[in-house]
Amino acid sequence: MSFFFQPVHSEHLGHISYIFGRDGEAAVVDPRRDCEEYVAIARANGARITYIFETHRNEDYVTGSAELAARTGAEIRHGEDLPFTYGAPTGEDFQFLVGGLRVVSMKTPGHTDESLSYVLYDPESAGREPVGVFTGDVLFVHDTGRTDFFPDRAEEVAGLLYDSIFEKILPLGDHVLLWPAHGAGSVCGSTMAEREVSTLGLERRTNPALKFTKREDFIKKKLAEKHTKPPYFHMMEKYNLHGSAAPMPRVPTPPPLDVDDFAERAENGMRVVDTRSPEAIAGALIPGSLAIPLHMLPAFAGWFLEYERPIGLVVDDAAPDDLARSAMRYLMRLGFDQVEGYITGMSEWEKSGREYDRIPAVHVDELVSRIESDEDFTLLDVRKDEEVAHGMLPDAKHVFLGHLPDRIGELDKSKPAITFCGSGQRAIIAASLLKAEGFKDVGDALGSMAACSARGCPIDRE
Amino acid sequence: MSFFFQPVHSEHLGHISYIFGRDGEAAVVDPRRDCEEYVAIARANGARITYIFETHRNEDYVTGSAELAARTGAEIRHGEDLPFTYGAPTGEDFQFLVGGLRVVSMKTPGHTDESLSYVLYDPESAGREPVGVFTGDVLFVHDTGRTDFFPDRAEEVAGLLYDSIFEKILPLGDHVLLWPAHGAGSVCGSTMAEREVSTLGLERRTNPALKFTKREDFIKKKLAEKHTKPPYFHMMEKYNLHGSAAPMPRVPTPPPLDVDDFAERAENGMRVVDTRSPEAIAGALIPGSLAIPLHMLPAFAGWFLEYERPIGLVVDDAAPDDLARSAMRYLMRLGFDQVEGYITGMSEWEKSGREYDRIPAVHVDELVSRIESDEDFTLLDVRKDEEVAHGMLPDAKHVFLGHLPDRIGELDKSKPAITFCGSGQRAIIAASLLKAEGFKDVGDALGSMAACSARGCPIDRE
Amino acid sequence: MSFFFQPVHSEHLGHISYIFGRDGEAAVVDPRRDCEEYVAIARANGARITYIFETHRNEDYVTGSAELAARTGAEIRHGEDLPFTYGAPTGEDFQFLVGGLRVVSMKTPGHTDESLSYVLYDPESAGREPVGVFTGDVLFVHDTGRTDFFPDRAEEVAGLLYDSIFEKILPLGDHVLLWPAHGAGSVCGSTMAEREVSTLGLERRTNPALKFTKREDFIKKKLAEKHTKPPYFHMMEKYNLHGSAAPMPRVPTPPPLDVDDFAERAENGMRVVDTRSPEAIAGALIPGSLAIPLHMLPAFAGWFLEYERPIGLVVDDAAPDDLARSAMRYLMRLGFDQVEGYITGMSEWEKSGREYDRIPAVHVDELVSRIESDEDFTLLDVRKDEEVAHGMLPDAKHVFLGHLPDRIGELDKSKPAITFCGSGQRAIIAASLLKAEGFKDVGDALGSMAACSARGCPIDRE
Amino acid sequence: MSFFFQPVHSEHLGHISYIFGRDGEAAVVDPRRDCEEYVAIARANGARITYIFETHRNEDYVTGSAELAARTGAEIRHGEDLPFTYGAPTGEDFQFLVGGLRVVSMKTPGHTDESLSYVLYDPESAGREPVGVFTGDVLFVHDTGRTDFFPDRAEEVAGLLYDSIFEKILPLGDHVLLWPAHGAGSVCGSTMAEREVSTLGLERRTNPALKFTKREDFIKKKLAEKHTKPPYFHMMEKYNLHGSAAPMPRVPTPPPLDVDDFAERAENGMRVVDTRSPEAIAGALIPGSLAIPLHMLPAFAGWFLEYERPIGLVVDDAAPDDLARSAMRYLMRLGFDQVEGYITGMSEWEKSGREYDRIPAVHVDELVSRIESDEDFTLLDVRKDEEVAHGMLPDAKHVFLGHLPDRIGELDKSKPAITFCGSGQRAIIAASLLKAEGFKDVGDALGSMAACSARGCPIDRE
Repeated sequence: MSFFFQPVHSEHLGHISYIFGRDGEAAVVDPRRDCEEYVAIARANGARITYIFETHRNEDYVTGSAELAARTGAEIRHGEDLPFTYGAPTGEDFQFLVGGLRVVSMKTPGHTDESLSYVLYDPESAGREPVGVFTGDVLFVHDTGRTDFFPDRAEEVAGLLYDSIFEKILPLGDHVLLWPAHGAGSVCGSTMAEREVSTLGLERRTNPALKFTKREDFIKKKLAEKHTKPPYFHMMEKYNLHGSAAPMPRVPTPPPLDVDDFAERAENGMRVVDTRSPEAIAGALIPGSLAIPLHMLPAFAGWFLEYERPIGLVVDDAAPDDLARSAMRYLMRLGFDQVEGYITGMSEWEKSGREYDRIPAVHVDELVSRIESDEDFTLLDVRKDEEVAHGMLPDAKHVFLGHLPDRIGELDKSKPAITFCGSGQRAIIAASLLKAEGFKDVGDALGSMAACSARGCPIDRE
Repeated sequence: MSFFFQPVHSEHLGHISYIFGRDGEAAVVDPRRDCEEYVAIARANGARITYIFETHRNEDYVTGSAELAARTGAEIRHGEDLPFTYGAPTGEDFQFLVGGLRVVSMKTPGHTDESLSYVLYDPESAGREPVGVFTGDVLFVHDTGRTDFFPDRAEEVAGLLYDSIFEKILPLGDHVLLWPAHGAGSVCGSTMAEREVSTLGLERRTNPALKFTKREDFIKKKLAEKHTKPPYFHMMEKYNLHGSAAPMPRVPTPPPLDVDDFAERAENGMRVVDTRSPEAIAGALIPGSLAIPLHMLPAFAGWFLEYERPIGLVVDDAAPDDLARSAMRYLMRLGFDQVEGYITGMSEWEKSGREYDRIPAVHVDELVSRIESDEDFTLLDVRKDEEVAHGMLPDAKHVFLGHLPDRIGELDKSKPAITFCGSGQRAIIAASLLKAEGFKDVGDALGSMAACSARGCPIDRE
Repeated sequence: MSFFFQPVHSEHLGHISYIFGRDGEAAVVDPRRDCEEYVAIARANGARITYIFETHRNEDYVTGSAELAARTGAEIRHGEDLPFTYGAPTGEDFQFLVGGLRVVSMKTPGHTDESLSYVLYDPESAGREPVGVFTGDVLFVHDTGRTDFFPDRAEEVAGLLYDSIFEKILPLGDHVLLWPAHGAGSVCGSTMAEREVSTLGLERRTNPALKFTKREDFIKKKLAEKHTKPPYFHMMEKYNLHGSAAPMPRVPTPPPLDVDDFAERAENGMRVVDTRSPEAIAGALIPGSLAIPLHMLPAFAGWFLEYERPIGLVVDDAAPDDLARSAMRYLMRLGFDQVEGYITGMSEWEKSGREYDRIPAVHVDELVSRIESDEDFTLLDVRKDEEVAHGMLPDAKHVFLGHLPDRIGELDKSKPAITFCGSGQRAIIAASLLKAEGFKDVGDALGSMAACSARGCPIDRE
Repeated sequence: MSFFFQPVHSEHLGHISYIFGRDGEAAVVDPRRDCEEYVAIARANGARITYIFETHRNEDYVTGSAELAARTGAEIRHGEDLPFTYGAPTGEDFQFLVGGLRVVSMKTPGHTDESLSYVLYDPESAGREPVGVFTGDVLFVHDTGRTDFFPDRAEEVAGLLYDSIFEKILPLGDHVLLWPAHGAGSVCGSTMAEREVSTLGLERRTNPALKFTKREDFIKKKLAEKHTKPPYFHMMEKYNLHGSAAPMPRVPTPPPLDVDDFAERAENGMRVVDTRSPEAIAGALIPGSLAIPLHMLPAFAGWFLEYERPIGLVVDDAAPDDLARSAMRYLMRLGFDQVEGYITGMSEWEKSGREYDRIPAVHVDELVSRIESDEDFTLLDVRKDEEVAHGMLPDAKHVFLGHLPDRIGELDKSKPAITFCGSGQRAIIAASLLKAEGFKDVGDALGSMAACSARGCPIDRE
């Protein structure tokens, strides 16, 4: 069985890359930076990677194209309207053979100007019928690509996206498989389905954006969308013009550090990032550290970390080496390579006699009592706009988590604060930031909105 | 990302099972007997397996439904027209919820009478539109299910298959994903594409059998098809009425055996199956042993082995434990559980001073010379009918490999014999059988038809 | 290289088993219950396990002899003075061949009456010289076996141990390697060195107990030793007369449970054991649960759990499946097989709106302030006698952790309590027990004695 | 349990390195070039590698000291009498602390002038008693170091070795553990025991060389020893003055090559090394290739390969990627980094129609018949001198395998040749060399001397 096709997910980032091949040749679409997996899959299928196809200059992760090409000798293809310093510019209807499979490029601007889609053909068994299409950030399952990156040309690019979808992609046929660059959880969209299998026909019938079949309606719909843009996007755009950040063919494992060494580095400017569970962070954390539980690094590190500042990790003691490596993997996908090392849990820190903070958990029953008692405290809700739209606790202050670093000045340090989100996970990030900024009395509503729903808290709806 | 969908392939058998799920629940379609992988995938996605869907009573492998159900508590569903001793009979339009996904059964007889297809819906993001369909042995990528199992009702069942495909499956819509139970390499079809991704629309346009859109033409086409039916199918049909063979939740690793012990068992009736490479077998093999290189066990063990006779393996010394385990896995999928143990390569056997056979390789240049010299020898071509139809070497005798045990009496033991196939791999199985049956002078044309094509041998075409 | 010798450690239990072999045969000394590893090592060395040697009826873990024998066909040997229902009784000077190596039994009573030591010879290269000796619980590195199991015969058995060591083991020669059944961390001794490589000569010169070369001095020394005896020892002694507890050839992975199901089982009597880190437990824990961080299960589960009561685990979300499996492994080694399942972290519990407890961390600086302020609270020090002997905080109440379930009545529930140990790890076990028993206000001194030493707290010395 | 001690074997090379540590620090003795394993063991034990101790400038493998130091920051120590371009020269009685353990250097010349032994102390539990000694190539289990590297100073250096052993090492005491740099299978000795655990006392009593307790007797004994010196030793000596060959922190996996590409490279000078089993090689091999079955690469690659000539591998198809990686590992340990890629088995080669050779197996019964029939053929026995000393088949020609490249001119190409060794494994190397050098009719006596012993062939004894 020499044909193979496999999506490769970058977990918690909503990024989907693809590898496929036949008869000893393979191609990768939109590779991420830690590219061992593509090489491993190709080998397991007895194939060499001969092509790397980029759908567009991605802005939410560091591409691995240049590195993967260096390891495999593959040829990189990308759009032709940006000053890329690597790969080969590719226009309309370029044809590529991958072991008997055929790939054809199609210009599909809108999300970015140089966006390409790639159509896969299997001449041997499907003749001239397209089999599937890699749509990058043009068309997703249940969503369409963002068109808010060029505010000056907002209408124009929304129209371009319309043309790309309605005049180029959908006409391929209802029967054509859809392979987009992102799925649920990505910041590149907001209504993507969790389901990651679809076809053009299914989208035509069920994608909410495609209901706007008239060009002007579609443009209006796109202009009305709201998206957040994490600050790290700028760096990604810079890196991805050059095929990658610094070469890093494998995920390095940051070294374990002695607690004294760690403390000294922290004093000298190293940013301490605590990746343990919200409960463990609540129990004890290093003063001044930023808490981002491991699985939230892909979504939130880009909002909080700086590229110039060295990073030191606190990892759970359950499997420190593996967890440090996972953290490193998540960080390097965003270009944060400057990890100096890690310590395992808080035990050594505690034994050293050093100070540590606590962030007491606040059950929603207690929270409601305190609200009702008219106690003067800040209830900080850090959920997204679309979540908050369904209702908030009375008197809550809403600041989206990603915007908190910029807006923290709006809060009163002298008052007790309780952070709140969907379940208490994002709230711990906010709580640690408040602590680091000098708030004395900070609690985290572990359970948060989910517990409220279960218990039936009083909710204000707009 | 709680949605997941993953095909699970049984390599070299062309069997495809599926596991999918959402929000902590999962379902498996047509599980194989070694079912750890489903459990592992479910766990990795934080889900419990709650349903097992069988498309039909499979005949080419032992089902793992009963065992998987025992391990997970899942409910088994299958068709309603056979006296199954396990699971729950399921008719038209039964509905099942898998964590918010919906599965609906559809009776699709033809291949077997009780065949079901299962349609997957994702109400949350795709409403009432079907997303994909598990078609079992009704519709494949580039092929349709066999209808030769009921020779007395040949026309009737071919017609039923037509109705199932044209009146039930295709009407679901061009945009619907196709998930069949078999792919290229399976004995359940002959023209399946290597490509395993498809949609109903793509099949409607490119599947050669679906060009026969008139019922009578389709029936005619099906009646003209020729299929081979390995003898082990009977046992599979028996086992699969009961949900499995004996319980064997994990693949056991056969024990390494001392060479003296192994030799003694072989003398007492144990069948020696040599799974090494054709070249290694050619170099030295145990007299009387049957050579089936490892990766050909799934396709050919069912033609050559008996269920009552114990089996002893010879495995390559490259990784004996793993290879013995792979052999065991392949054999147990066919219900051959009676493996007594293995020896590692031939080295200990050789050192013991015991006799060993050799099967000299015959290059096609030499073979052509011998043909042209009018030497009196048997050139045995063991390829399939459809391969032979493209041409044979002059004076070759054709017996399909699977039929050789029954037809070996047609050959003259006293003459030298050279076995031949597509590349020399299947030929080694044939050669070992000739040796075991007392043929003295047997060679294997390593390279065979592939080398002929490269060198340009004289070919007789019918 | 056909010779192999490998210690196999049961982590955190201080148990050391051994596997060694040559030329295709192997023997295992004192196997534990999860015996896959012996089989794997034997296979990796191309050997069959032909003998299992037990040094004595172990009391601190469930033996795996019967299961390992069932899997491998090996012969089990053990002492002759107990009514074992498995294996073969073995007296003085029995001889066994393991692929050219020779093993000779030697009766060495004292720790138990039926204790055997096994002397290894390598006739081929070391002739009649003993190479090493498996001493079980008779002689350890830097310690000797406990003789407190027969209080009525205390002097007699201490004398027997003297005879075993001084008249049988040491006379083998200074050059003989020492392979005992336990190392540092075991409850079977108290002064064992962390170093696990030694010889009889090295012990003769440096083992503190062997300085008592006169029989009566040695007896006096042994009688003065104090050991704790966890309640689970009784069950081990029972199991190990029969070769094992129930058969459990592999470590089963407990199933993940739905949080509602988990909560319901807990209400119906399931014991909730929280294996997360002390900090995570401090942050939020299920009311009534018993906290035993994962790596402390081997040492403390036997003091706190009952054999009749089902167990439900809370595992860290870092790698839930693996951690649940590790917990299961640790528990089954002690015969606690009745694990019903696990939940991953506290997140689902919190989201369900259910109540949860907190155990605030108390830094030693704060602790000292509170002591000095004459606040009325219980400072509970749960360290071992020998640790406490070096000094305690003023006014601390000392109860060894293992004895807390029996002595908890000595404490006043109505007063705030702070638990204290070497570093705050064992203290969390104690704190959770106090919580479960209805103490309202409980803190854990994370850092504990280690932090005190670093900070310089006031210490009372006896 | 923070103490750890672990030998790390380089399989089939007889090289033993060691890693040990305590309390977060570790040291490695005589690391090999592929040094990931030391890093992994250190991490698993929560330790940083702080010292690398070299016993001497090794000549039989490439040291990994420089690379390991670069990865870990460890300090390298070695002897002081060679112009090393790395590490720190170390004389008598230098002291090093490794987490509370103490290591003391001891000058022990003889094998080389700058040889050091390192004595391990555990002050905490063993005070001033030495626990063990790393003796490098001075004292082995059942053997002593070679003293044939300085032919001009033969007597002198044998005397130095005597002094090192009898005046420095043995006086440490009978109870001291022995940790040498080599075990059975190494070319650094000839009588080493397979057993790898020993003590100084055990050696004093059972090491055959240590029976010569008088200096002049010992010197006489050493001068009478015969050793072979593979040509690659010169390169090792050169590399190891500099800490390594080129940096190669991980074992690279050579790429799979297309068969046409492989064939073309072979025509342009690439050395084809076939690592499959002797039987597979016997079945079919590439004309001109050198056959060295995988597990014999460590022992024989250094006799046959050149450092300037690119290498292409043929690996067994059982697990091609892994086997190519193992081959690469074995080759890079000897400094043969120039591997261009591999092909999987012979199948693609055969299908391409290219020519292939065969080396028919010759059973010893047939061999004896042919000897007795007075047929004129060459029976080439390639065993070692010490093996041949026990007897040879009549009329056999003896050339040690390693010397065959130099002495092949002594054989008559025009006569049939049968190669012979202990079991037929080394014979296949010889047979492939004869084939490559133009011998037409070459057979391999699979079974060889072992089969002769089993069958009772006529043997000539000197």
